[in-house]
Amino acid sequence: MLICKVLKPLVSTNRIPGFEHKHLQVVLDGSSKKVAVDAVGCKPDDWVICVGSSAAREAAGSKSYPSDLTIVGIIDHWDPDAPKPVSGGSA
Amino acid sequence: MLICKVLKPLVSTNRIPGFEHKHLQVVLDGSSKKVAVDAVGCKPDDWVICVGSSAAREAAGSKSYPSDLTIVGIIDHWDPDAPKPVSGGSA
Amino acid sequence: MLICKVLKPLVSTNRIPGFEHKHLQVVLDGSSKKVAVDAVGCKPDDWVICVGSSAAREAAGSKSYPSDLTIVGIIDHWDPDAPKPVSGGSA
Amino acid sequence: MLICKVLKPLVSTNRIPGFEHKHLQVVLDGSSKKVAVDAVGCKPDDWVICVGSSAAREAAGSKSYPSDLTIVGIIDHWDPDAPKPVSGGSA
Amino acid sequence: MLICKVLKPLVSTNRIPGFEHKHLQVVLDGSSKKVAVDAVGCKPDDWVICVGSSAAREAAGSKSYPSDLTIVGIIDHWDPDAPKPVSGGSA
Repeated sequence: MLICKVLKPLVSTNRIPGFEHKHLQVVLDGSSKKVAVDAVGCKPDDWVICVGSSAAREAAGSKSYPSDLTIVGIIDHWDPDAPKPVSGGSA
Repeated sequence: MLICKVLKPLVSTNRIPGFEHKHLQVVLDGSSKKVAVDAVGCKPDDWVICVGSSAAREAAGSKSYPSDLTIVGIIDHWDPDAPKPVSGGSA
Repeated sequence: MLICKVLKPLVSTNRIPGFEHKHLQVVLDGSSKKVAVDAVGCKPDDWVICVGSSAAREAAGSKSYPSDLTIVGIIDHWDPDAPKPVSGGSA
Repeated sequence: MLICKVLKPLVSTNRIPGFEHKHLQVVLDGSSKKVAVDAVGCKPDDWVICVGSSAAREAAGSKSYPSDLTIVGIIDHWDPDAPKPVSGGSA
Repeated sequence: MLICKVLKPLVSTNRIPGFEHKHLQVVLDGSSKKVAVDAVGCKPDDWVICVGSSAAREAAGSKSYPSDLTIVGIIDHWDPDAPKPVSGGSA
């Protein structure tokens, strides 16, 4: 799952009916903006857990929901500037 | 979901029958061009929401539709040059 | 879907039976080489549409076909050097 | 599957019920932090195997579990600084 | 599918039972190391085809096998240093 920051709600009047009335949020994943379906009720500046892949559908409420990124949890405490371990490099 | 800009329709006469008569659009995802199935009826320069993964199939109309990227909504207002938050870096 | 250029067929004598007798092609996706199952009958230098994710399986012929990248169409006309729009940056 | 290093547990009080009581771990994949469901019982500094895609769901316990990244094994010995082969470049 | 080079087997004693007794191999995908389930019987320095996404599960033997990367074929002849075409840039 990704660790993202919530930026703001996204409004799309002309969208497929499958989205129903769920809220869409613009989230920041690293340096790129993405759109996620909000399954927990979050607000701007929250740090959240986003699930992708086919799991995003069931997380959004049903196996046929057309989401590939769903907000599934709000992180209690997150320090994005915490240093990363220096020993033991990348794989 | 991705935030993409519609560039132009794509013509592919020799394609598998599974695509049926749905329109294909070339979209710009950041700096790379991709092809998406149009499920909403969009036009060049529209900013749109594209869903990927297995959700792209159902979003295109049926569970067996061979799409991995489907345009599912047109964004009402989008400013691609809006500044990103500077505090709170990437995860 | 990705826009790729066909490079050449790939020969793999020792492969799982699930691939059957379908042809494999080496394609160029941007600057990286990948292998795709050919569902349309293409030749080197063709510009093609490749579908990934779970849709690649059904596009290759059946729900249980072990492909994650399938060539689903040949693009009629493609100019890879066409300029990208300069106004309206990335999302 | 990815080779990741376990950093620390992640606490998210407000999360969807589908996660049940399974533990979430922050893992380091190269230089980016991700969240994975712990299916083996690991601790910080372990090098682990993480499975993504739809396989992450079944690996976490059931076909409907909302995970896209699950820790499925602890690597016995891993030297992240082992030199990579220099001959035979990338594909 | 990806074109990868086999580096060495990976030993993980503490892993989920779902992996059964299949062999895991560390493979090099471009410049990053990944773990793949070996479905063909390969050895270090082989150039192989790896399938990802949900197709990796069925390729590993069954629809419920927890793999997201499976080695499905050994390439007969592969020259990783073959020049890439210079005309016709990336999409």
